[in-house]
Amino acid sequence: MQSLLKDWDARCSQTPALRFVDIGLRGFGQVMFQDNPLTGILFLAAIAWGSIVAGVPHVLLAGVLGVVASTLTAIWLKADKTALMAGLYGYNGVLVGLALATFLAQGAALWIYVVLGAAVSTVATLGTASALKSFGAPALTAPFVGVTWIMLLATSGFAGLSGAALPTAGLVAPFEPAASVSVGLGAYLVGTLLSISQVFLKASVVSALLFLGGLAVSSVPAALSALGGGMLAVAVAHAFGAESDLVTQGLLGFSPVLTAIALGVTFRKPGLKTTLYAALGVIFTVVAQAALNVALRPFALPALTAPFVLVSWMFLLPGEEPANSSKPE
Amino acid sequence: MQSLLKDWDARCSQTPALRFVDIGLRGFGQVMFQDNPLTGILFLAAIAWGSIVAGVPHVLLAGVLGVVASTLTAIWLKADKTALMAGLYGYNGVLVGLALATFLAQGAALWIYVVLGAAVSTVATLGTASALKSFGAPALTAPFVGVTWIMLLATSGFAGLSGAALPTAGLVAPFEPAASVSVGLGAYLVGTLLSISQVFLKASVVSALLFLGGLAVSSVPAALSALGGGMLAVAVAHAFGAESDLVTQGLLGFSPVLTAIALGVTFRKPGLKTTLYAALGVIFTVVAQAALNVALRPFALPALTAPFVLVSWMFLLPGEEPANSSKPE
Amino acid sequence: MQSLLKDWDARCSQTPALRFVDIGLRGFGQVMFQDNPLTGILFLAAIAWGSIVAGVPHVLLAGVLGVVASTLTAIWLKADKTALMAGLYGYNGVLVGLALATFLAQGAALWIYVVLGAAVSTVATLGTASALKSFGAPALTAPFVGVTWIMLLATSGFAGLSGAALPTAGLVAPFEPAASVSVGLGAYLVGTLLSISQVFLKASVVSALLFLGGLAVSSVPAALSALGGGMLAVAVAHAFGAESDLVTQGLLGFSPVLTAIALGVTFRKPGLKTTLYAALGVIFTVVAQAALNVALRPFALPALTAPFVLVSWMFLLPGEEPANSSKPE
Repeated sequence: MQSLLKDWDARCSQTPALRFVDIGLRGFGQVMFQDNPLTGILFLAAIAWGSIVAGVPHVLLAGVLGVVASTLTAIWLKADKTALMAGLYGYNGVLVGLALATFLAQGAALWIYVVLGAAVSTVATLGTASALKSFGAPALTAPFVGVTWIMLLATSGFAGLSGAALPTAGLVAPFEPAASVSVGLGAYLVGTLLSISQVFLKASVVSALLFLGGLAVSSVPAALSALGGGMLAVAVAHAFGAESDLVTQGLLGFSPVLTAIALGVTFRKPGLKTTLYAALGVIFTVVAQAALNVALRPFALPALTAPFVLVSWMFLLPGEEPANSSKPE
Repeated sequence: MQSLLKDWDARCSQTPALRFVDIGLRGFGQVMFQDNPLTGILFLAAIAWGSIVAGVPHVLLAGVLGVVASTLTAIWLKADKTALMAGLYGYNGVLVGLALATFLAQGAALWIYVVLGAAVSTVATLGTASALKSFGAPALTAPFVGVTWIMLLATSGFAGLSGAALPTAGLVAPFEPAASVSVGLGAYLVGTLLSISQVFLKASVVSALLFLGGLAVSSVPAALSALGGGMLAVAVAHAFGAESDLVTQGLLGFSPVLTAIALGVTFRKPGLKTTLYAALGVIFTVVAQAALNVALRPFALPALTAPFVLVSWMFLLPGEEPANSSKPE
Repeated sequence: MQSLLKDWDARCSQTPALRFVDIGLRGFGQVMFQDNPLTGILFLAAIAWGSIVAGVPHVLLAGVLGVVASTLTAIWLKADKTALMAGLYGYNGVLVGLALATFLAQGAALWIYVVLGAAVSTVATLGTASALKSFGAPALTAPFVGVTWIMLLATSGFAGLSGAALPTAGLVAPFEPAASVSVGLGAYLVGTLLSISQVFLKASVVSALLFLGGLAVSSVPAALSALGGGMLAVAVAHAFGAESDLVTQGLLGFSPVLTAIALGVTFRKPGLKTTLYAALGVIFTVVAQAALNVALRPFALPALTAPFVLVSWMFLLPGEEPANSSKPE
């Protein structure tokens, strides 16, 4: 695999068009923190499969358009070349494209909206990264969440764009299940897998396996973290008595999956303490996901990956070993 | 004009009362980033005209009281003298005064409220400027927005103060026009001009022309940016199918006008790239204005200039030439 | 008293269990900025009394569990030892415990929730302190507010947890009293005292006196600030025409009490100017408390001490003597 990647990189160095494809693929991979074009190809396949079986092939196109528009904007703005080549100005654009096409009705205005949102997501990524540099915190998917929320909200004021799958606005009210529903092992495993595919707004077991494969070719610990994070999240959500549909569709687990990879592998030195710390983060991300689902009800907005961003920032801000790391205990 | 300003400045140096008037006038000018007392006089005239024709002359008085209270607070707190003399502790007070008097019913409590809000706006300006210094971002009108939102919200809990022109609370719901409405050239130009006057919460073409004149005596590029920003904003809002009344009353264009001046002239070196970057910012400010109008509906709050603040911060945070500016490409 | 404390400290140095008790007591004291175990004992007594007379003794237990869980988390995360020993990783846990037990129904899930919330509050305290270090601003009770809001919101999505005393969700609507209600001296004094006890979510005059005693044994100026802040806040709230029940129950005064101690004594050099500045902060905290009560209505959330945090940050960010402190005027 390594020699394959080396060969690919040599070709990219010679052909600018291939380099652009490479950057785009890495942009797909960076949604789950992987700087690897092979991961990107498998993620792309997962999105393609999920979009086609759900009857929304244009969502795949919007994701591709998103990565192209955001990467071109980064080149125009002369963004840092190392970050650019690692796909770090692409993953927010991918998600903006997927989300806008998932939640809004098709039409010419949608495509303008995707290009606009992807371009602005690059500005937001540059701004967020610049603002957070001194705190040692990464931008994560905050630019995607901020830009997409603004753009979805605005559609309520624009006749030219309309929601297709947005939640309905309502007042906050407690959820009271008619009867206690137990979730079997099959539903539990499906919920775990869909938690992984929902990171890309897809509800497909096949896509989930492709995503796991994409993670594994780049980092086996990342794949295990995603799986473990999903299993823990689904168990916690069910234990707290969350709505069974949300649990088994992975809708309370996709943010925790990202938290698991970020806190457990990507931004901290792996180890037992890191794993326990990440587990605490995963549990609280489930709570935050339920909370944001409730808090956003009056605005008819989906939570997207905001719970992951909030909790991961909270858990990353203290630094690797908080405070007296330089002093002996 | 320059000799006139020089003569005026010499007189101010001798007479503290004149200096205070000068600082106040510059406070009015700084709402649109102009450190110029002549601009202040023309802006004052525009507000006076707009207030009188709308039958609310006390709004003008509230604006003046706002600049006086906020400037006195800055002197009491020994704020930076250079910034003080440039009117930078006055413009938020001006806007707090205008907004509270526009949205709340008259009465003794209103005047106490204006003084309190203007005084706190100075504290908020000092705090925001201090917090943002290391990010290289200016406070903009964030202190005005924050203080005014808090004070307007609180009136729902205070019998002593009541709303006169606040929006009614409601759930978020998509806007569906009965029929497609086309906007003619006349309405388009009026919408552009009112976008400029609505920066000061005024809906008057005469006021708009006075504001443009006030900008031009200080900076012709700023005046052109305001006009260009307004034209672009109104066109974009109409193209997205925004409610015609909002478009032609300038209610989706006043934040973009400020974004145009801030990004196109005041905080970036002018040029083609800056103009394109500012245009992207203006377009996204229209989206953000529509979004905030929707998001604030449950709170019965107006968006004020929050969309301008959010988008301008997002676009200014990356810095003049992001990242690898020191490296050759 | 000093020799008593010295003797106690000597015993704590020898016995780890006693030291842990000492840290826990200081955690209670730090809710009102006092690093003093005697203050902690009196605060604990106040909470015990308030909980027992209100028929909710388990609330006291939740507060104790909160301080234990958050302190143990801090030890596990090797947090700064000086801060740990001063109880600075305990006060947010205390408040999380008290708030969750106050607003949610009893049950096994509640106790898991308290431990989870208290543990996460320590992570949030480390993160907030780290993020705010360069701004010279303290974390205050922001970790408590953030964690508790998230956990309360989430209960609307969890059948396993339910609200017992949460406000009902509703749209924002202006408050119009049937008739002007005057508040007598007795009600005024009770409102002042309850403003102090409501800092710990208690409505008891006896508790208030114990809290004042706890403050006085550590710092007489802090006790006087709390009293003065409460008196000013209740007067201002009544003058603006706030609902009499809120005023006399101390529900508009508890955030201002904390603002008074923070701005008047703890984080600024005491003196006339500081007192006036703190008074301005107290007045604006009343407005912010009314505002947040309104803004949180759609979410069925209590404001907690968020108004105190917001206003105190705003007033502390400018620094001790803003801007040109080093220059002669």
